[in-house]
Order: sequence, then structure tokens, then C-alpha cells
Amino acid sequence: MSDEFALIDSITTVLAETTAGADVIVGPGDDAAVLAMPPEHELVVSTDALIAGSHYPMHARADLIGYRSMAVATSDLAAMGAAPGWATVSLIVPTLSRDWAARFAAGIKRAALDFGLKVVGGNLARGPESVTVTVHGHVPRGQALRRSGAKAGDCVYVSGALGGAGLALANAGLATPSPSALSADSSLRRYWQPTPRLELGMGLRAVATAAIDVSDGLAADLEHVCKASAVCMDVELQRVPVFQGAVALQATGAGDDYELAFTAPTACEERLQALARRAGVPISRIGNVRAGASPRGRLVTWLNEGIVVQAPAGYRHF
Amino acid sequence: MSDEFALIDSITTVLAETTAGADVIVGPGDDAAVLAMPPEHELVVSTDALIAGSHYPMHARADLIGYRSMAVATSDLAAMGAAPGWATVSLIVPTLSRDWAARFAAGIKRAALDFGLKVVGGNLARGPESVTVTVHGHVPRGQALRRSGAKAGDCVYVSGALGGAGLALANAGLATPSPSALSADSSLRRYWQPTPRLELGMGLRAVATAAIDVSDGLAADLEHVCKASAVCMDVELQRVPVFQGAVALQATGAGDDYELAFTAPTACEERLQALARRAGVPISRIGNVRAGASPRGRLVTWLNEGIVVQAPAGYRHF
Repeated sequence: MSDEFALIDSITTVLAETTAGADVIVGPGDDAAVLAMPPEHELVVSTDALIAGSHYPMHARADLIGYRSMAVATSDLAAMGAAPGWATVSLIVPTLSRDWAARFAAGIKRAALDFGLKVVGGNLARGPESVTVTVHGHVPRGQALRRSGAKAGDCVYVSGALGGAGLALANAGLATPSPSALSADSSLRRYWQPTPRLELGMGLRAVATAAIDVSDGLAADLEHVCKASAVCMDVELQRVPVFQGAVALQATGAGDDYELAFTAPTACEERLQALARRAGVPISRIGNVRAGASPRGRLVTWLNEGIVVQAPAGYRHF
Repeated sequence: MSDEFALIDSITTVLAETTAGADVIVGPGDDAAVLAMPPEHELVVSTDALIAGSHYPMHARADLIGYRSMAVATSDLAAMGAAPGWATVSLIVPTLSRDWAARFAAGIKRAALDFGLKVVGGNLARGPESVTVTVHGHVPRGQALRRSGAKAGDCVYVSGALGGAGLALANAGLATPSPSALSADSSLRRYWQPTPRLELGMGLRAVATAAIDVSDGLAADLEHVCKASAVCMDVELQRVPVFQGAVALQATGAGDDYELAFTAPTACEERLQALARRAGVPISRIGNVRAGASPRGRLVTWLNEGIVVQAPAGYRHF
């Protein structure tokens, strides 16, 4: 049994490299962090909890748990078009191990440096393992992307390829991949080290009418956009970009890929493709937005080569 | 088994009353909340997790769990001198019950209205019960209270009376008090419905040299201030205000009272007392700050009627 305060100190020391900068007035170690917002910007906040045995396998590699929990939360900033700012990390673990905590902190740190986030605070408590990350970013006033702006006539897009995380779930070595397994298998990397599409999201501020990150699965997430925007969509199954080795149902139903799905006016196609090249991630046009409710009572109508097919189900946590 | 999204909707509906206001640009229901910061202010952020069976009894009243989790987190804003802004609530529960969630949300809502916080987002997942609340506030630029400013010659103060929460822990009816038990027993209210000292904290911005909230126990929390400020303290045990019915060890060691402990120059006594009257909470001068390390190697030297006594131990979560 280690000392709680000493363990917090050791984690804070690992993460100190992420907190350098004039925007962190008070970092970890006080009652709260104090942060300088850029003027004329709005604050963007999202929180996500990952639970061992539910959102990732039990007894998984601590560094991967840390990295993935940061990536999942940060993806919500990308979906709002926000620039990354700061994160707090609340860790619950059944027993305190200095070694485990050091590896967890290393994963958090790597993600923070990869995504441009500063880890300014957190909480450590004993209990069944889970990680809750709250991320904070900022957007120029009035420019946040929402789910609610999709308009009839817009095109529906998705970034990257989908189904990689779903494919990884079928891998018996998911919990504790060796470094070489991780480097050899891109689906394992997609599951543990997804890339929040921050640059794409920021670029979409001026172009997209609605955006969401693909966390529950494309089918479910497009429904969220339809509900929020009071529209419906036709989506061509054969246009959905499928991660190498995955099948269509993993691409549309499995979730956890953390790509962005978004809508934009047809006229923006060229701008979008240029933006995608700059952001280093391909985008695919997969469908169209239509007004009102679908005649079949569906928010999203799935078509395969023009034929209506059954909706590929989304992932439910419960 | 209920539907996750429907349950989230029902909680969001209960909390909608808290989110009205021009500062909430995007509230719950999108990928993230978007919030307007007051100009020339700094953002203050803190996160706290409460775990069933560790930080509060198993099978406790859901509304009380909600209220207390908000109060505990908000107390950190008070300790920084911050004005309350927004909260996110991450709830993990083993089974989804609409009735339990409604009562939990009612407790969160009451706390939000009591403290002036808007609940702008959250997360719901299935697993062993815990609640993680992240609170956001703001302070005029450069005016946040820290733990690190205590100076030799300052006086040490604490607000309210301590030991009430420790006293409640000995109560067999702690988990599920009836409304009449809660109204009859002030120690139960102190445990479940502590009052973050927000007004006092904001008033202390211009006066206190250091501040902390009393969460780990007065003895441990004063040590945190000494470490951060590189000073030591003499504290008179008989001056510590003891909650009615509690004993001295509960007042100094038990924690969970969420009063403020702070240091201020001797010359500020009158200003402090006027401030305390306006904030509606008494303050007590309990000791003095001295330079450097104590000759006995202690950060805080406890005296009883002038005689050095053993340090009353702080609470450790592990």
C-alpha cells in the first residue's frame, strides 16, 4: 500500500512537461487549476468515462488505457471545431501501484503531447477501475460546430475509415498487445490510440453545417445528427470507407473509431477536399440530407447500390 | 433495463432549469458544451470523484449522493476565490433505474441552484457506482487564492465549525436518513449537504494570503498549505471551533466539513470579521504562521493551552 499523496506527486511530476505555458496560471497541486482563456473565444467542455471491463478489457496495459481515455474525450473537442486546451483526469483503481501509475501517466502524457492538451488537474481514488477525462478547448466566438445545423440538400461526409476499432475487439490479444503487435496491427492502434481529428474539426468551422464524432457507431451517430437537426438522411452503404480487414457491419455499427461525420453544402466539395489534404485525413461523401421525416419512419435510410437495406445497428453501452 | 439515451434525456430535462442563461451557448446534448467566459477573467477548474462504499455509504439516498458530489467539487471553487460557473457530472451505476436517476438528478439540480452552477454536460455509464463532478468557475485575472502565499506573521483562520461530518459517520442511519431525521440532525446535513463557502472565498480574494478547503481534515489540510507556502504553523487546539456534539479529534482529523482554512495578515482581522458577517459564516483565528521548518520537524505544531500535543491525524483515502 503506497501513500496517496506521494503517488499523486509522482503522477504530477510525469505530467509537468505538458503544463508549461503562460495559459496555465495554476497547475496541479492546488484546490483547482487556473487557466487563461484566449480573448473573444468560447470555452468548450466535455467529459467521458471509460470503465474497465465495459469500455476496454480488464487488466489492460496501463499506458494504453491512459492514451485511449484522453483520445476519446479529445475527439469531442474535434467534433465541436475546438482548439485543444486543458484536461483533468480522474482515475479510480482498486489498488495503488507506483509502477502501474507511472505507466498510466506515461500514456496520458503521450496523448497530451500528441493532441496539444495540458493536464492541469485530476483526482485519484480507490475503487473499481475507471478513468474519467474532462477536456477543455476554445473556439472563436460563435464558431462552434453543432449537431443541429444539417440542412436539406447538404452532403453527408465521414473522415478516415471505419470499423478498425470493431475489428480490434475480435483480437484475443487486445488487452495487452506487445509493442511489436501494436506496431504490426493497425486495428489495435485504432482501438487504443485513435487520432482525434482536431485539425479537420477546426477547419470545418467555416464549412460544415453539423458535425459529430463517430463513437457510438456511424448508424447511431448519424441518427443523433438527424434528431438534433430535424432532418433525415439517405446514406449509401457501399460508399462508407471500411477499415482494412473490417467488414461493413463493423464500419457502420461498432463505433469507437473517433472519426468525424459531418454535413456541408454541395458547393463546398472542393474546399472540403483541400481541407482534408491539409489535415492529413481523407474524407468520403456517403450520402445526402433530406427534409423532414423519412417516409419509412427512419431518420437514416441505408441504401446499397440504390436498394434500401436494414439499418446497421449502433452500439449501446447498456 | 432501460434505454441509455432515453435515461440521459430524462436527466437532462430535470437539469434544464439550471442551464438557462446567455453564458450557456450550447448546453447538454451535443458533443460538448460551449460556454461564454466573462472577459478579463481566468477559468478555474477542479474535478472530484466520490465512490460508493468509500466516500459515502453503499445504497445511500440518490438525491443525497447527487447533492453531496456537487458540494464537494464546488468547495474547491470556494477555496480558490472563484465565482461558480458550470459543472459536468459523470455518473457510473451498476443498473439503470429511471426512478433512481430521477432522484439523483433532483439532488444535482438542487445543489446547482443552491450554489449557482449550471449543469452543462455529463456522462452515463454502467459499472460500480461512482460520481465524478468537474466544476468550472472564474476569477478576475490574477486574483485566484492559492495554497502557496502564507507568510510568517500571518494568522491562521478557519470558517464555521468542524467535526460535523465526522460525527455523522458514526450515525447508523447515515445512508438513508428520512426527511425528518435529516431535518432534526445537523451533523447528517453537514455530511450530505455541506455548504461550499463561495461568498466567503470570493471575499477573501483581496485579503487572504493562502486558502484551502477542509476536505482531508484540518490537520492534513493545514500541512498542505505549509508545504505549498514553505512555512510552518502553530495551531491552538482549544481554538478550533468544534461542531456541536463532535469531539476535538473529529474536528481536526475527520475532514469532509468543506469549511475554508486560510491565512491573512494580522492587520486584516476587522476586515475579515466584517466579511464573515456578510457571508453568514463565523470565522475563528486558530493559530499563527512561522517561517521555515519547525524545530521539531513538524509543519504544524499543535498546542493545547500552550502545551505541545500530538498532531491529530488527517484522513487518508487509501
